[in-house]
Parts: sequence; C-alpha cells; structure tokens
Amino acid sequence: MAAGFQAPKGTRDFLPEDLVQRQWIEDRWRKVSINHGFEEVDGPTFEHLSLYTTKSGDGIVSELFSFRRAGGDDDYALRPELTPTVARLAASAVRQRPLPMRWFGIGPFFRGERPQRGRLREFQQWNADVIGDPSMNAELDLLSLLAGTLERFGLRPGEVTIRLSHRDAVAEVLRSLGVPDAQLHEAFTLLDRKEKMTPEAFAEKAAPLGLQADEIAKLDAVLLSAGTTDALCQTMGNLGLDTNGLEPLLHLAQPLRDAGLEDWVTFDPGIVRGLAYYTGTVFEVHECQGAERAIAGGGRYDELIGLLGGPKTPACGFAMGDVVLGLVLENLGRRPQSEAILPRPDCFVIDAGGRSDAVRQLLRALRGAGLHARTSVKTTRNVGKLLAEASKNRARFAAILSDEGLDGSIELKDLESGEQRPVASGELAALLATKGHADNSGHSDS
Amino acid sequence: MAAGFQAPKGTRDFLPEDLVQRQWIEDRWRKVSINHGFEEVDGPTFEHLSLYTTKSGDGIVSELFSFRRAGGDDDYALRPELTPTVARLAASAVRQRPLPMRWFGIGPFFRGERPQRGRLREFQQWNADVIGDPSMNAELDLLSLLAGTLERFGLRPGEVTIRLSHRDAVAEVLRSLGVPDAQLHEAFTLLDRKEKMTPEAFAEKAAPLGLQADEIAKLDAVLLSAGTTDALCQTMGNLGLDTNGLEPLLHLAQPLRDAGLEDWVTFDPGIVRGLAYYTGTVFEVHECQGAERAIAGGGRYDELIGLLGGPKTPACGFAMGDVVLGLVLENLGRRPQSEAILPRPDCFVIDAGGRSDAVRQLLRALRGAGLHARTSVKTTRNVGKLLAEASKNRARFAAILSDEGLDGSIELKDLESGEQRPVASGELAALLATKGHADNSGHSDS
Repeated sequence: MAAGFQAPKGTRDFLPEDLVQRQWIEDRWRKVSINHGFEEVDGPTFEHLSLYTTKSGDGIVSELFSFRRAGGDDDYALRPELTPTVARLAASAVRQRPLPMRWFGIGPFFRGERPQRGRLREFQQWNADVIGDPSMNAELDLLSLLAGTLERFGLRPGEVTIRLSHRDAVAEVLRSLGVPDAQLHEAFTLLDRKEKMTPEAFAEKAAPLGLQADEIAKLDAVLLSAGTTDALCQTMGNLGLDTNGLEPLLHLAQPLRDAGLEDWVTFDPGIVRGLAYYTGTVFEVHECQGAERAIAGGGRYDELIGLLGGPKTPACGFAMGDVVLGLVLENLGRRPQSEAILPRPDCFVIDAGGRSDAVRQLLRALRGAGLHARTSVKTTRNVGKLLAEASKNRARFAAILSDEGLDGSIELKDLESGEQRPVASGELAALLATKGHADNSGHSDS
Repeated sequence: MAAGFQAPKGTRDFLPEDLVQRQWIEDRWRKVSINHGFEEVDGPTFEHLSLYTTKSGDGIVSELFSFRRAGGDDDYALRPELTPTVARLAASAVRQRPLPMRWFGIGPFFRGERPQRGRLREFQQWNADVIGDPSMNAELDLLSLLAGTLERFGLRPGEVTIRLSHRDAVAEVLRSLGVPDAQLHEAFTLLDRKEKMTPEAFAEKAAPLGLQADEIAKLDAVLLSAGTTDALCQTMGNLGLDTNGLEPLLHLAQPLRDAGLEDWVTFDPGIVRGLAYYTGTVFEVHECQGAERAIAGGGRYDELIGLLGGPKTPACGFAMGDVVLGLVLENLGRRPQSEAILPRPDCFVIDAGGRSDAVRQLLRALRGAGLHARTSVKTTRNVGKLLAEASKNRARFAAILSDEGLDGSIELKDLESGEQRPVASGELAALLATKGHADNSGHSDS
C-alpha cells in the first residue's frame, strides 16, 4: 500500500479484535469512575495552543502536537491532556454548582514526540479530577478511585504501586541537601528525569545545583528508602536530615490507613512530576519492578483554574493512558482474549427453507426487541453447516426456519446445552429476551 | 475569560448534563449496530492529507480541516469522515476474513468550514459499512440498520425518510433530458446543491449543461414525484421520458417491501451525494418537512478499496452525525431530560455517627462490588438533611451509619418506597447487588 495511505506514524488502526481490547479498558475506567461518584465531561479534541503554552510549562509544551490550520492564522494543538480543558469548564461552573465537583473524561489524546514503546502520538486517556476541595479528602477520593481501578483490572499491591509525594516535601529534602531556593525549580526538573539518566549524567547536571557526590549519595539513600513513612523518616534521621519538611507528605499516612489504602501506596520523595502547574501532592502509578513507563500520574493544582480566568479554586487530578496500562496487563498475562469479550449474538437465524423474506422479517423483529441477531450469507440450506457457523459466531441460540417460515413454528436450539424445541415465531423475541443475554451494551463485563 | 482560553470556534465543551445527551445518542448507535451484527472498528483521529485529497473529490476537500504540524513537513487532516480509513483497514483485511465484513465506527470528526446550524467544526459521527458484498443485500443490511436506528430514537416513517437513489438512474434521467455525457459529472454536482439554491440560480447554472426552462420543468416534476416507484414511473411516462434507466433504482423496491422497510424509503432521483467515490446506490435521511440538513448519508463505493491499494472489493456504507440528529430530536420533543439519563447512585452513605473511616471503608466495599456509591461532603449529622441530599442525588437507597459504624448494623432506607430496615454491614453490598440496579454501565437505557 502506498505510504500516503498508511496510518500516520505513532497512531493505530483498530480492527474489531483490537478495538474491543481498547474498549475493555475504557469501559472499566468509566464504570469505576461512575461507581465512585464521578461525572463524565469532555471538551474539544484540539484547543488553542495558548491554553497549553501559558500554564503547563516546558514539560508538556516540548511534546505538543501543535499546528496552524492550512489557510488560517490561529495556532492550535491536538490536546495532550485534559486538565487545562477541565480547568476551563470548571472556571465557569464553580460558581453555579455545589463543590466539590468530581469529574472524569475519556478520549483521544496526542503527543508530538517521536513514538516509543509505551508512548504513541495518539492514545486513549482517562482523566479524573476533584475540583473545589482544599482538604486532603480530594486526594483520598482520587487515590481510592485509582486503587479501585487497579483492582478492577486484576492488579494487586506488590505488582503495581502508587508512588506518593508532595512538592513541598521534595523541596525540603532538596533544601536540606543544600540546593539553593533559586535553583529548586531546576532541581525538580532534574529529579523528574533521574530514573531515565545514567548516574554519571545525573551527577554532571546536579553539581551546578549544589549536589556533589556526598549529597547525591544521601539523596539516593532517601529515594531508596521510599515505602512507608517510618522507613523514610528513619533513613533521613540516620543521614542527619531534618524530617519536619516531610510533614505535608506524612499527614496523608493515617487517612490512607483508615481508608484501607496503605497497601497501594509508596511514600516516595523521588516523584515530582514534570508539569509546571502542580502545587502540592503529586503521584504516579508504576509497575513495582520498574517495567514500562508510569501507568498514571497526577497531583494537586490549586492555581490553574484561577490562572485560566476562573475564581481561585483548589483542584487535584490524575490521568492514565491505555498504552502503558495495556503493556503492563499484557506482561502480567491479565488481558482477556479478544474472542472472549467481543459481543456475542443472542440468536443466529438459519434459513432451512429458502424464505429469505421471512428471515429478514424475523431478524427485524429480534433486533427491534433489542436482541443481537445474525444470519448466514451462504446460500446452503444444510442445517448442520449453518449450525456450525452459528457456533463459530458464538451465538447463544440458533433459530431454524423451515419452509413454513414465519407462519409455522421455529425450531429454537440452545447452542450451549444442545436442547432444541419448537417455538411460535411471534414469541421468539420475548422468549430470548427473558433468557438474559448477558450484556446488551455489547461488551462483556467478565 | 480570555479569548485564548475559550473552546475553538465550532467546537463544544461538554458538562456532565451535555455529555450524557451525546452519549445517549452514541450508546443507541452502538447497540443497534451490534444487534445488527456489525463489528466496531476505529482509526487515527488525524490522517495524511493525501488519504482524502486523492479519492474523495472536491466535495470533501474544500471542507477539510487540514494542517502542517509545527516544525514538521507532513500534511495532515483531522478526519472528516471514516470511509477512507475503513477502506484502508479493509484493504489489508479482505484477504484474511470471511466476506462480507460488517463494520461500524463512532468517534470525533471535523470540518474546516465556517460553523453553521447543524454543521460544527467538531462533531461525533457514526459510520457503518458492508464490505465485500456486490449484491443488494449490502444495501438491505444498511437500510435495515438505518431504519432500526431511527426507530430506536423514537422516530417514525412520515417524520423522517430515507431518500434512496442510484447514480446510474440519475444519469439516465439527466441524459433523457438532454445532458451530454461529458457534462454529467457537472450536472451531478449541480443537482446535489439544487435544494440549497434559488430556482433562478439553478437555471443559470443548468443552461450550459443543456437544461433549459422546459427540461428544468420536467426535472422538477420528476423530483416532485419522489415517493413510490409507481409514482416516479408514472410521472416520467407522462412526461414522455424513458423509465428503463430507472431500473438500477427500481430493483430495490421488492426486496425493501419483503424486508418490511417500504414505509421508511422514498425513491428520489434528486439524491446524488457530493463525494466522488460513490458508484451506485446513494441515499440520505431527511426530516420529512425539510427541516435541518441531512441526518445521514451514504452509498455504494465499489472502487475505493482498490484505489487505496487493496484488492478491488465492493462496499457500501453511510454516516450519521450527532448534531443534526440532535436538532431533529429536539424539534420533535424526543430528547430525554438529562436528569433522567444521568447515572443514578445505588447507595448514598450517611454518616450519622462521625465515623468517617467507617464511611470510607463501606464506600470501598460497595464500589468494589460494582455498585455506584456516594456520600456527602457536609459535616452535618442531621439525618433528615442528608436524606434530602441522597434524594437530590437520585440515589436508590440510603445507608445510615450510626456510632457503632461498621461493627454494628446499618439502617438501609429504600428512597423510593420509604421502607427502612437494619442490615448487617458485611451483607450490604451483596444485598444491594441483588436489588438489580438498572444499569451498571452508567447510562440508562430508557
């Protein structure tokens, strides 16, 4: 096929067995979000470039898929994340609605970078935010949603973990190691990239920020002790570092225990997040062995809604993409077979009498009753062959029409039990509807 | 709010009560498609510009939202329709899969034109195709899906109609009126725009194509007789025009009657469709009084898959957007209230004893069991006020926790019947799960 006719680099074509995998993920994101009391919102797929350049910081701007429309003079970007859009929605909504607002969104997002494993140019992303709650209940709501979602995918603590941090605590750790206030921002950016750098490259960049070999060794010891708050405090004490600065992070420990979430969380001052708008708590979800990129990331952004023209409103949120999650589930053997989650026909109609008009009318009646009904395109009237096709379609029942067609009765065969019995044609739809086809929405919830 | 922070012109922000309306439409498209045996596919949100410029013709190219990425040298377009993407997917799939393939897709699509009523820059669109069936069964499958969908939205024949045509039949009508073969393509384009032009403007453009006042009067008479095949043939006979050319259109009449679809269809040679790739049958869905733009449109495109590098494969399909459909439903008073279709909580947990840890644990248990559970953020322990909030949230049940919290029993109140009784906390989730919350997928199917 000519190059121009292929999908753009870093994007995906989805045949039915591929799309059902993506939807299996999206359906779980949506159900767990709704069950946690979050309401779904959405915005445009592309936005004015300025929505991102003004407030997100270098972390995202360098990765934007931005463009100027042919024949136009406005600069746009394919949305790289939902948070600025959510902040805009919130800016006009906060005055009219009870707070906090718990919102989520699911849709396509984009990055302009060179595609890599786990990082495509177009991907599906789930976004969840709590808007208007200054208390740590916002964090608890989000971490609870996150843990509930990981559980829903069959993931367990010890396989994946929520690495929890707080920018003020990280700043205190860096200050206690000698980083001057003026260079904290630069040190944050460096720390955010530390796990992707060699120790030598890190040391070279860290030196001008006041971190020499000794301080880096201490920093490494602190990062290595990430886990419980006790482990973290003990290590810092042993190194002669003041643990008071950790307070903003530590005060989440007891509520997390009370909510039964402690197994899911690793207290980790190595997490800072790249985006400029975060103002407090930050967190990322990682596979525990360090396989793949971060599965999710987020944090508190108390200034963004005000910066986008709304009333100053505290907010906290996270995002999770389908690509890394899919890889982690794949690695752990937790993805279902596509065949097991593709929609199953309730009834496969078999034309044993050459009455194609009767078949069409029966199909119409079944579908009108909300049932998933198919038939064969083959001209054979060999019932055995057609039953085999019905089974291959994973149909629950086969309805066999003889010459009498709609006037006579229909043989209904249960393709699981093998039972067969005559049913009046006018009663077939009602009968099948009561047989409780597992999932009328299409995608199985198993 | 600063202009840069507003949604781009012709795009939409979706607050929860807006998005649920869009999803109400999408859910119906998806369910009816699946029930008709169609499988869902998808592709990238943007494509190489050449995918559209090569084959779609002027009709779509002038409306494209095309762009060159900042810092790049590839030309892209935000997808204006799914058909070229489907043709690419089919080009590689037809050799490996049983034919015909019945595919559908739902997602965001884009146009670069100035936004107008019913025509936005970004909209949701549903696309359905039958690939690999040269017979008119493809048309019947699609028209059956289309009628089933209109029915599912509560629309009836007489309110909306499928205007059915065939390019060969239209060509014969135009030829019989004196349009030379070399100008047929131009005449098609003009006919496609006829309903949006004044009679004077049409006459001026038609004259150079061989259509003078007499021929235009005849054409108008033919178009006015659109309806049954009998009416069409009688009018053409009365005008002394040869009806043999209508044959490709007429031979769909009996199968449509057999399938019980005749009430839904208007045989109308005034429909030609703008896209260059259509090769035979074409159709549009319109509100019968001519209100709003076309609700849907499609046709047969037997050459496109071959042109995109695949084996020559017959195909037929249509698309329906959410904007015009939404307007037509709105005009007819057929849209549900958002409140009636927003997800309903199964349980609203009321903290009557100040045990916020117990509340969090109960919420976690309920949500882990797949239930939609909420609580109040208010600090009040006034059960009456909290019950009012539960009702305002449209919860089915309220679970009232007293001081004993999780250790004691919970008062479960049915908010519809008003019944109240104690339930052991460990049994609450299982009990509520059997109460058959109407729709675990979030969106009500009512």
